[in-house]
Amino acid sequence: MDNYVIKGHICYSKTSTDLSITENGFAVCENGNCTGVYEKLPESYNPLPCYDYTDKLIIPGLTDLHVHAPQYPFRGLGMDLELIEWLNTHTFIEEAKYDDLEYAKKAYEIFTEDLLHSATTRACVFGTIHTKATILLMEKLENAGMKAYVGKVNMDRNSPGYLCEESAKKSVSDTEKWIKDTKHLKNIKPILTPRFIPSCSDELMEQLALLRRKYRLPVQSHLSENLSEVQWVQNLCPDTRFYGEAYDKYGLFGNECPTIMAHCVHSSKEETDLMKKQNVFIAHCPESNTNLLSGIAPVRTYLDLDMKIGLGSDIAAGSSLSIFRAMTMAIQCSKLRWRLTDQSLTPLNLEEAFYLATKGGGEFFGKAGSFETGYEFDAVVLDDSSIRHPQKLSVRERLERLICLAEDKNIAAKFVNGRKLF
Amino acid sequence: MDNYVIKGHICYSKTSTDLSITENGFAVCENGNCTGVYEKLPESYNPLPCYDYTDKLIIPGLTDLHVHAPQYPFRGLGMDLELIEWLNTHTFIEEAKYDDLEYAKKAYEIFTEDLLHSATTRACVFGTIHTKATILLMEKLENAGMKAYVGKVNMDRNSPGYLCEESAKKSVSDTEKWIKDTKHLKNIKPILTPRFIPSCSDELMEQLALLRRKYRLPVQSHLSENLSEVQWVQNLCPDTRFYGEAYDKYGLFGNECPTIMAHCVHSSKEETDLMKKQNVFIAHCPESNTNLLSGIAPVRTYLDLDMKIGLGSDIAAGSSLSIFRAMTMAIQCSKLRWRLTDQSLTPLNLEEAFYLATKGGGEFFGKAGSFETGYEFDAVVLDDSSIRHPQKLSVRERLERLICLAEDKNIAAKFVNGRKLF
Repeated sequence: MDNYVIKGHICYSKTSTDLSITENGFAVCENGNCTGVYEKLPESYNPLPCYDYTDKLIIPGLTDLHVHAPQYPFRGLGMDLELIEWLNTHTFIEEAKYDDLEYAKKAYEIFTEDLLHSATTRACVFGTIHTKATILLMEKLENAGMKAYVGKVNMDRNSPGYLCEESAKKSVSDTEKWIKDTKHLKNIKPILTPRFIPSCSDELMEQLALLRRKYRLPVQSHLSENLSEVQWVQNLCPDTRFYGEAYDKYGLFGNECPTIMAHCVHSSKEETDLMKKQNVFIAHCPESNTNLLSGIAPVRTYLDLDMKIGLGSDIAAGSSLSIFRAMTMAIQCSKLRWRLTDQSLTPLNLEEAFYLATKGGGEFFGKAGSFETGYEFDAVVLDDSSIRHPQKLSVRERLERLICLAEDKNIAAKFVNGRKLF
Repeated sequence: MDNYVIKGHICYSKTSTDLSITENGFAVCENGNCTGVYEKLPESYNPLPCYDYTDKLIIPGLTDLHVHAPQYPFRGLGMDLELIEWLNTHTFIEEAKYDDLEYAKKAYEIFTEDLLHSATTRACVFGTIHTKATILLMEKLENAGMKAYVGKVNMDRNSPGYLCEESAKKSVSDTEKWIKDTKHLKNIKPILTPRFIPSCSDELMEQLALLRRKYRLPVQSHLSENLSEVQWVQNLCPDTRFYGEAYDKYGLFGNECPTIMAHCVHSSKEETDLMKKQNVFIAHCPESNTNLLSGIAPVRTYLDLDMKIGLGSDIAAGSSLSIFRAMTMAIQCSKLRWRLTDQSLTPLNLEEAFYLATKGGGEFFGKAGSFETGYEFDAVVLDDSSIRHPQKLSVRERLERLICLAEDKNIAAKFVNGRKLF
C-alpha cells in the first residue's frame, strides 16, 4: 500500500519550541512521504485507504543517533566503572565475540527484533571491527524494514590484541571491501566509524579520510565524553588544541562530511564553535553519561546555538534502547545540571526533548522525524490505554505521560518511509 | 497454604554490602515467616508443598517508603516546576478531588491494582485530608493483600481553601475518628501524616503529638527536600535551628515514635546527627528529587553513618511506582553527585541499592525485606526470559540487569507475609 491516510492524534515538532498537535487528524502518506496533516481530510484524499487509529497518538518515528549493536547483550551490566576501565573490562571482551559469525547471528537477531519493536525507526549504529558480522547486522536491519547507518569499527592501536586490527592498511582495505559488499542494501547504509582518537593511528585516520572522499561517506565517532579520555587525547595529540581538532585535521568533522559525534559532555568553547560552524551533529546520550560517571552535557547551550543535536541510547553504556527513556533522562539530567552546576542553563522541557528525539536527530537522515510536508513518512502509533487514569487528560498530557512511562507494549504500530512494519 | 517451600535463585541482602545468592535453592515459609534458605532442602521439609520456580529469580518484596496514592493519576505530568509551585499548580488541585468518594474509588482502584502488580509488597502511603477516601484506600489495599501504613493527611495552614482543614481541632478530631474507624484492618495500619511543617500550625502539631502518644502511632512527613522549602520553614520557625527540630519539639522525630522523613536532600550535619541518634528512617526518592529540581541526597553519608534508610517512589513527583527504577536512579544520581558535587562520596553500587529497596526500607515494618530466618515471607518471583541475550549470564548478572530493565511483565508471582497474591 503506497498511498494512504492515517488517522489519530498527530503530534510532531515544527521547531524545538513548537509542538503541533492535531486531535483525531489525518496524515497523508504518498510514495513514502508525508504530504500533509489535516484536521479534516480534503475530499481528494477520500479514495485513499485509511488506517484508523482514532484516539491513539501518532508521533514521528524516533531516531537513535548513537547505539552500539554488539554491546546489546550486556545492557544493564557492569555499570560500576568509568569509560576507559569499562571498555577494557566489559566492552572489548564482548565485541571480540563477533569474530564468530554464529554468535553474531544470535546476538544481532535479538538486537534487531528489539529495535524493531521499539519506537525507533532510524538509527546510527556502531558494529565491531568484523566486516562479516557487520554485514550480517546490516542485512538483518534491512530485512526488518529499518533505516540506519551502520559502521564497521576501525581501531588499530591502544586496543587489546584480540580486538585490534593488525595494521592501518588492513583496517582500511577491510573497510573498503565492506563498503563494496554492502552496495546491495537499500535502507541500511555504511558510515565510517573510527572508534575514537585513542584507538586510531594517524595513518589510519589519513587513510580513512581518503576513503571517505572516495565514497562520499558520513562519519560517526566519540567526542569529549569523559575527563580521562579528553586528557588521554590531549597526550596523544599534543599538536591539537582540543579533541575535535584531532578529527578535523583529517576532514572528518562536519562540513561536506556529515558527522555525528557522540557525547560532547566536556567540549570547550572552541570545540563547540567548530562543531557549530561545520554542522557536526551531537548525539546526546544522557543515560550513558550518567552510568559511566562522565557528567552532563550542556544541551541548553547547544540548543541556544541552534546546533545539530539529537538523542542516543548508547547501548550498552546506556541500558535501554528506548528513546523515550532518553528523552526523560535528557530532561532529568538537565535539571540536575541546573541544580548542581550551572543555573544559567535552564533545564530542557517536554517540547525540546521531543524535538531532539524526532526532528533533531532525524535531520541526519535528511527530511525525517516530522510530519511536515515532504518528510519521509515514519510514524509510531501509541496506545496508552494500559496507563490508566480516573481524570480527563488532554492529548498533550497523554504525550507527556507516555514519554515518561511508555513501554514497548504501548507501541501499537510502526511505519518507516511509508512501509508498515507492524 | 500456610507452610510451603519455594524453589528458585534466591537473592537477598544480609547487609548493605553482602548480597546472598542461592542458585536453585529452597526457601521455607512457615506461618507467614521465612524459616530458612537452603541449597539442598532438609528432609524434614519434604512433605511440604513446593512452588517450583526453577531458574527464575526470587527476591524479597520491595518496600516503597514514600508514595502519595492520590497523586497517582498525574504521574508523569507537570514536571516543569519546583516543589512549592508544583504543589500549588498540580498537586493540591488533584488532591482536592478526593472529597468526592466516587472519584476516590476510581482513582484508588487503579493505584491499588498497579501497586499489586508491581514488585512492591509494603508501602508507606500518603492519602489526603479526606477521612472517607483514606479509609477506602486502606480497605482496597487490605483486600489486595498488601501490607502498608497509610496516613490521612493533616494540613491546616498555608494551603488553598479547598484543601485546608478548617481548624487544628477539626483536623485532629477527624484524625482520631479515622484511627478508630480503621481498627478492623489487619494488614493496613494508620500512620500520622502531618503533610510538612509549612502546612501544619503549632496547635495542630501539639494535638497530633498527643494523639500519637495515645494511640502509639508511627509518623511520616517530609524533610529538607527543596531549598526554598527549607528557607520557608526557617522563616516559619525562627526558634528552631534546623528543619528537623520543628518535628522533634513535638516528639514527632524518631525515638519511641517510629518516623519516616522523606527526602533529606539538604539536611545539615546537626539534622543528620539527630536523625541518626533517634533512628529516624530516611525515604530516599531520587526520581522525585530530580524531577522537582531539589537536588541529590547524600546517601553515601547516610549509609556510612549506618542510618535507617530505604527508597521511595514519591508518586507523583516520581513518575513510576517501580522500586526497581528507584534503585537504578539511586545509583545514577549518586554517580552524578560524585561527578558534579562531591568526589568524597563514592557512588552507590548494586548491592547497596538492592539493600535499600529490600531490607533497608523493610525494617520500618520490623523483620521484612529479607529471607533471613524469622523474616516475614514477602517474595517476588522474576521471570527475565523476555530480556533475551546470546551469552551465558550468572544469576548475579541477571539480577543486575533486571534492576535496570524489569517491567511489571517480568513479575511472575508475589507473596506477602506468606500469602500468594498472584
